Amino acid sequence: MQKSRTSKFITIEGTEGVGKTTAVRIIQDYLTEHHQEFVSTREPGGTAIAEQIRTILLTPHDEKIIPTTELLLMFASRAQHVANVIVPALQANKWVISDRFVDASYAYQGGGRRIDLSKIALLDQWTVGDAQPDLTILLDASPEIGLARAKNRGPHDRIEQEKIDFFERVRAVYLKRAEQFPERFRVVDATQSLESIEQEIKSCLDKM
Amino acid sequence: MQKSRTSKFITIEGTEGVGKTTAVRIIQDYLTEHHQEFVSTREPGGTAIAEQIRTILLTPHDEKIIPTTELLLMFASRAQHVANVIVPALQANKWVISDRFVDASYAYQGGGRRIDLSKIALLDQWTVGDAQPDLTILLDASPEIGLARAKNRGPHDRIEQEKIDFFERVRAVYLKRAEQFPERFRVVDATQSLESIEQEIKSCLDKM
Repeated sequence: MQKSRTSKFITIEGTEGVGKTTAVRIIQDYLTEHHQEFVSTREPGGTAIAEQIRTILLTPHDEKIIPTTELLLMFASRAQHVANVIVPALQANKWVISDRFVDASYAYQGGGRRIDLSKIALLDQWTVGDAQPDLTILLDASPEIGLARAKNRGPHDRIEQEKIDFFERVRAVYLKRAEQFPERFRVVDATQSLESIEQEIKSCLDKM
Repeated sequence: MQKSRTSKFITIEGTEGVGKTTAVRIIQDYLTEHHQEFVSTREPGGTAIAEQIRTILLTPHDEKIIPTTELLLMFASRAQHVANVIVPALQANKWVISDRFVDASYAYQGGGRRIDLSKIALLDQWTVGDAQPDLTILLDASPEIGLARAKNRGPHDRIEQEKIDFFERVRAVYLKRAEQFPERFRVVDATQSLESIEQEIKSCLDKM
């Protein structure tokens, strides 16, 4: 994909209950105010087939989903999402906001499930290639705080049922990636007031 | 998986309509006669989750499934199949008969979809590892003959809807793999009489 496009690809990342939905809404409102067309999407999912894969991934099953299967399903869903939604939208000069994207695989399957990050990097190259985000907002909070908030939303899905140390490993990889790619990542303290979070996100968007 | 096990893993491969179901039945009957416990399974599928992935793979959709997605879904289903069905059965001293296995990915996604075989080899290593078949029966016939036979079975699935040159590429990779792994493969001419095919398959099993 050519980087000469003027539309931007923004991803929102973070563990459960850090306020990703609210962050997406802040960006949507900002883009609407600025008369910028956008597509708002999510992972896993974002296309009809990718949503079918999402259902397999998130529904609790009697059969154990092994980590390699989880990894391959995440990237299968992402391959559809990139090819059929993200790239076409950017090429049509629409901005794209995605609630989670490839960094989530490094964090969840790499950190959480302890899959070798080099495998994830290879799948990233095969499926995402140069369709990488222009801005990634990482909403950061300790898993204790996030999970307590997420609890109020109803029953946990298959991945949310994991224990606290799983989410601590997820958070650690997210923060490490933010350090590795400082030009793309913006880490936002998710324990701040909603006003402060909104201000931080808007200031990122102003710069773009 | 230790190779010291006495149970064997047999796979049946070939393009559409070459008589894989009949070959499976011949092997089942042979093992039953010889009082050998076995598990008969298939790909894509073979576990509850893998069958859900099979449904996504084989149902015709409005949305195009891109080759990378097809590849990753095939191996996601295979990862479940190997970990939750094939390896446990072999370890319990049961033979395993699978209607298609990893060679089908080299043939269909590699030959048919023209995906780089080195990618497939890497996924093979990640998901199958040393749980490779002991015997692979490749039923070989020209796609014209096979597709004419398969037509009588009802509407074609998403992959069966491909054109004849797709299946010619699939057949070519199957035959190439048989050449590469002569100790594991047995190529059976699927245009022979049923009696001759049965005799050939039984003679392979006698040798094991």
